[in-house]
Amino acid sequence: MSTKIPVIEMFGPTIQGEGAVIGVKTMFVRTYGCDYRCSWCDSAFTWDGSAKDLRVMMEPEEVLSGLLEIGGDRFDTVTISGGNPALIGEGISELIGLLHDRGIKVAIETQGSRWQDWFLEVDALTVSPKPPSSGMATDWTMLDSILTEVGMNARGSYSLKVVVFDDIDYDYAVQVHKRYPDVPFYLQPGNDNVTEEGDISARLLGRLEWLFNKAIADPDMNAARVLPQLHALIWYNKRGK
Amino acid sequence: MSTKIPVIEMFGPTIQGEGAVIGVKTMFVRTYGCDYRCSWCDSAFTWDGSAKDLRVMMEPEEVLSGLLEIGGDRFDTVTISGGNPALIGEGISELIGLLHDRGIKVAIETQGSRWQDWFLEVDALTVSPKPPSSGMATDWTMLDSILTEVGMNARGSYSLKVVVFDDIDYDYAVQVHKRYPDVPFYLQPGNDNVTEEGDISARLLGRLEWLFNKAIADPDMNAARVLPQLHALIWYNKRGK
Repeated sequence: MSTKIPVIEMFGPTIQGEGAVIGVKTMFVRTYGCDYRCSWCDSAFTWDGSAKDLRVMMEPEEVLSGLLEIGGDRFDTVTISGGNPALIGEGISELIGLLHDRGIKVAIETQGSRWQDWFLEVDALTVSPKPPSSGMATDWTMLDSILTEVGMNARGSYSLKVVVFDDIDYDYAVQVHKRYPDVPFYLQPGNDNVTEEGDISARLLGRLEWLFNKAIADPDMNAARVLPQLHALIWYNKRGK
Repeated sequence: MSTKIPVIEMFGPTIQGEGAVIGVKTMFVRTYGCDYRCSWCDSAFTWDGSAKDLRVMMEPEEVLSGLLEIGGDRFDTVTISGGNPALIGEGISELIGLLHDRGIKVAIETQGSRWQDWFLEVDALTVSPKPPSSGMATDWTMLDSILTEVGMNARGSYSLKVVVFDDIDYDYAVQVHKRYPDVPFYLQPGNDNVTEEGDISARLLGRLEWLFNKAIADPDMNAARVLPQLHALIWYNKRGK
């Protein structure tokens, strides 16, 4: 089996803006390819063909050396995102091992549509099933099996994160949270215009206030955490931040 | 010993805006009285006399019933802040017990200038030593002993948080982080005008970007987390949010 990883971008260090690892200083590796086509995807260049020429097939050792070249001694965490990194098996598994050998922690974000054994090795796994507004359908059987397996055997922490654009998405979030009540659960307002240029912070903060107020009023969300995308508040829709 | 607690305000549920518990849905109890007089304190009404008439001496049972009256079934966490709640012994200890009996979690914020045995019972303890811009001097002997004791015996989680207003504060934050490298460490930009009315989010996001860039460039901050005050981004300088 090939160990090459389709990489579309590497950057950092920057500050992780979302979810359980919000505020963490990290490098990013973004893999190319996704089994989803979310209507509002903020990284559609990873799957829509528009940036296909930038994709590079890299050995795990090359990813590591690339990260060290860009980030120097200014990081101890690497976040692997996509696209869906769970489309890739052996290459990511080896990369995790190389990073761990150097004492570097690994965070992953994936939608929970595919399983990889390396989920169990990750320091912080974020499973982010997509709500109805995405246009995607949740594979509940797969999600059940992923959360059961990491619940029993994961070496690191794991959490669920649901992005919410509207009331229907919110109801979906309640459904997810109730289905997995013991899994740390994060709500995040969606960015409903991922191509708008310039300062979008007022719009995003308005959406955060809306979601705050929904969660505050709802006894079903007492154990949820509600967080923004910090990077989008600071760096707006710019790529590579 | 009296078990009465000097309470200046109770409110919620709202979303915790800061530190390790950022995004958590919580009620707030703010105690009256502080051993510090930070120059930029955002809750100076807890100690400067301006709101002294609002202070109520409450038995722990009264605090519990007040919280239940205000928050109904819409919370499972209570945050006790101040002022400095560590000025209060038996009353807070009893309140923590009453909350735990009902399955309610307790988060505390204190500057680390005083010890209380109930630190060990708290679900999330935030110790927030104050940087030079506050005008306060850190009692390192006390801070050492608090962090040693909670490191050995705390039942819940604990973390350090340092608010940073300028480069001198930042150097202080580095000093704190290096002194306690194994304690989860949070950096937070200070709000340098706590009486400004209206929308202060652009100013606060500017300070967050400044602090992001400081931490990103600094190998000493690889393990730090950098977070804003979410409540101030949404609700500005309003009290009781």
